[in-house]
Amino acid sequence: MDPLPVPVIRYGDLRSMVKEIFQGSGSENAEADLVAEYLVRANLCGVDSHGVIRVPDYVQMVEAGTLKPNVQPKVVSERGATARLDAGFGYGQVSGKFAMELAIRKAKEYGTGTVVVFNGNHVGRVADYPALAASEDMIGVMMVKAYGELVAPWGGRKGLLATSPISFAIPTGTHGQIVGDFATSASAEGKVRVRQARGEKVPTGWLLDSQGKPTVEPDDLYNGGSLLTFGQWKGYALNLLMEATGGALSGAGVLDAFTGLNGVFAQAVDISFFSEVGEFKSRMDTMVEKILRSPPADGVKEVLIPGDPEAREMEKRKVNGIPVEERTWARLVDVARKYGVDVPRVG
Amino acid sequence: MDPLPVPVIRYGDLRSMVKEIFQGSGSENAEADLVAEYLVRANLCGVDSHGVIRVPDYVQMVEAGTLKPNVQPKVVSERGATARLDAGFGYGQVSGKFAMELAIRKAKEYGTGTVVVFNGNHVGRVADYPALAASEDMIGVMMVKAYGELVAPWGGRKGLLATSPISFAIPTGTHGQIVGDFATSASAEGKVRVRQARGEKVPTGWLLDSQGKPTVEPDDLYNGGSLLTFGQWKGYALNLLMEATGGALSGAGVLDAFTGLNGVFAQAVDISFFSEVGEFKSRMDTMVEKILRSPPADGVKEVLIPGDPEAREMEKRKVNGIPVEERTWARLVDVARKYGVDVPRVG
Repeated sequence: MDPLPVPVIRYGDLRSMVKEIFQGSGSENAEADLVAEYLVRANLCGVDSHGVIRVPDYVQMVEAGTLKPNVQPKVVSERGATARLDAGFGYGQVSGKFAMELAIRKAKEYGTGTVVVFNGNHVGRVADYPALAASEDMIGVMMVKAYGELVAPWGGRKGLLATSPISFAIPTGTHGQIVGDFATSASAEGKVRVRQARGEKVPTGWLLDSQGKPTVEPDDLYNGGSLLTFGQWKGYALNLLMEATGGALSGAGVLDAFTGLNGVFAQAVDISFFSEVGEFKSRMDTMVEKILRSPPADGVKEVLIPGDPEAREMEKRKVNGIPVEERTWARLVDVARKYGVDVPRVG
Repeated sequence: MDPLPVPVIRYGDLRSMVKEIFQGSGSENAEADLVAEYLVRANLCGVDSHGVIRVPDYVQMVEAGTLKPNVQPKVVSERGATARLDAGFGYGQVSGKFAMELAIRKAKEYGTGTVVVFNGNHVGRVADYPALAASEDMIGVMMVKAYGELVAPWGGRKGLLATSPISFAIPTGTHGQIVGDFATSASAEGKVRVRQARGEKVPTGWLLDSQGKPTVEPDDLYNGGSLLTFGQWKGYALNLLMEATGGALSGAGVLDAFTGLNGVFAQAVDISFFSEVGEFKSRMDTMVEKILRSPPADGVKEVLIPGDPEAREMEKRKVNGIPVEERTWARLVDVARKYGVDVPRVG
């Protein structure tokens, strides 16, 4: 089933519109700019689930008082190469960036730095933060304990865990960054919703029904079923690491005993403490080149490096504009009008 | 197909025998003791692929000069919360433990510590090292760039990557440690060999044949085929993180441009820098209890915590003895006789 034709908005136009919406809902210039940039960048990368679709939700949370504009994270404790931050229910983009930047400063001083965040809101597409470290010739890792209890422990059938994601970024010499960014569940919940809306089935391995039997029916998830972890017990183990780091260590809490929307663990490792940076990058380049030159599997056009699909989509959408599905666009236009923000022309 | 009856050896007997073999092949008391303890512990945990089956290989490597007994790792650089070690082709168990213990000391001082190792031999079952950190109320992580080129990049068909494992351990209050320990490939190579020996097929999702088509025939792996990464592109991304940390950052190298058998990245994070340790553990206990009390999936007896199956098997085998397959036992007995080591009675 082909997707319906959708509005296509130019990158700059969408970014300005979203920024002005956040300004309308109370954010000062720098914050509105940052949140708009990160959300629209997710759309640029093709990760629409973490893009402007979130704008109406954020604005609603601001109105409900659960998201507080213009709140800077507070450093609750800072010792050695570590720090712990209270995000104060400000924008997750603000506290997420603050956390990774502090981890980077720690890593510049000590070679490695670890910063955690509690009382944090949604950070958006997690890959944006490790990328900050990779831009400074570091390996960056962010682990996030997410909200919601939809994911079953492996071997169980009840949704107790969240879709908690992990992301990391590694610099190379000539290939940009290698970027891993994925939920520890077999699928994002959003993808199940899309299939449900389209009347489609989901692949096996995504869902259990309320009786703990594998199912391909999206409806079953919302009738007492659960999402499975990715890679079976391996993703389950990783998911518990997110609970331990982003949840328990940060102080945000575990499972449903959890405040805020995202508990964050940010780690930066300064390459220069271990290796000549040029040498490290040249090793990474060797690896990338050998992989890119290797023969593809049956039915695959070419072998890619993690992060490549998003980087390519970004180049395309910067030129061709960003497709936004009809329903999301209608909601965005509503919010824009509410704050007297001009709505750009769509293609 | 049921496994054939196998020799069963008492834990203490097997440990003494293996220790004496390593002493026979040149290791001083402490080293022989450590390597024997770690290998036999893998058998105790039911991870036989990383147990005493390795003894004849290690001894052979000592004879060939690629594994050097009684070599302590050298600290090549040490700065802030980091260090880089040259294992000097000594036992991987010695350098792996040294690395994690140094990361723990760094974490005690700075809250977080990162240590890498190059010129390292096989560390055995990786879970042993993060467990050292968890015993000190830390979260421990070890990432290993392994040897061998059997694993295809996701979307490719040529084995370029290794089965590189990641392991982590998290302390709890009342449940022991939560332990994740897994290869980034869909299966260990050893499991494919076992199926091949038994004339069995492997599950889909493990292998590609030389044409890059999915296959269930173990033989195809050894005829130009490849192992797949676990969790598709997610395990592929994680695998490249192992190349970057255990490989490039340590200086061991990437892909086949790699010295030694295991390049190591060890990380320890001291919980007390972030949270009251009792509070952290009580959060972990809450999580564990909720998971253990949750209903199992269809056909599953009970929900377990990662690390539980190994901990249970250890209790059983400590009492009932360790089953060692006929062929492995025969090879062990040969090596024992060669060094004049007494062979214990088997059950």
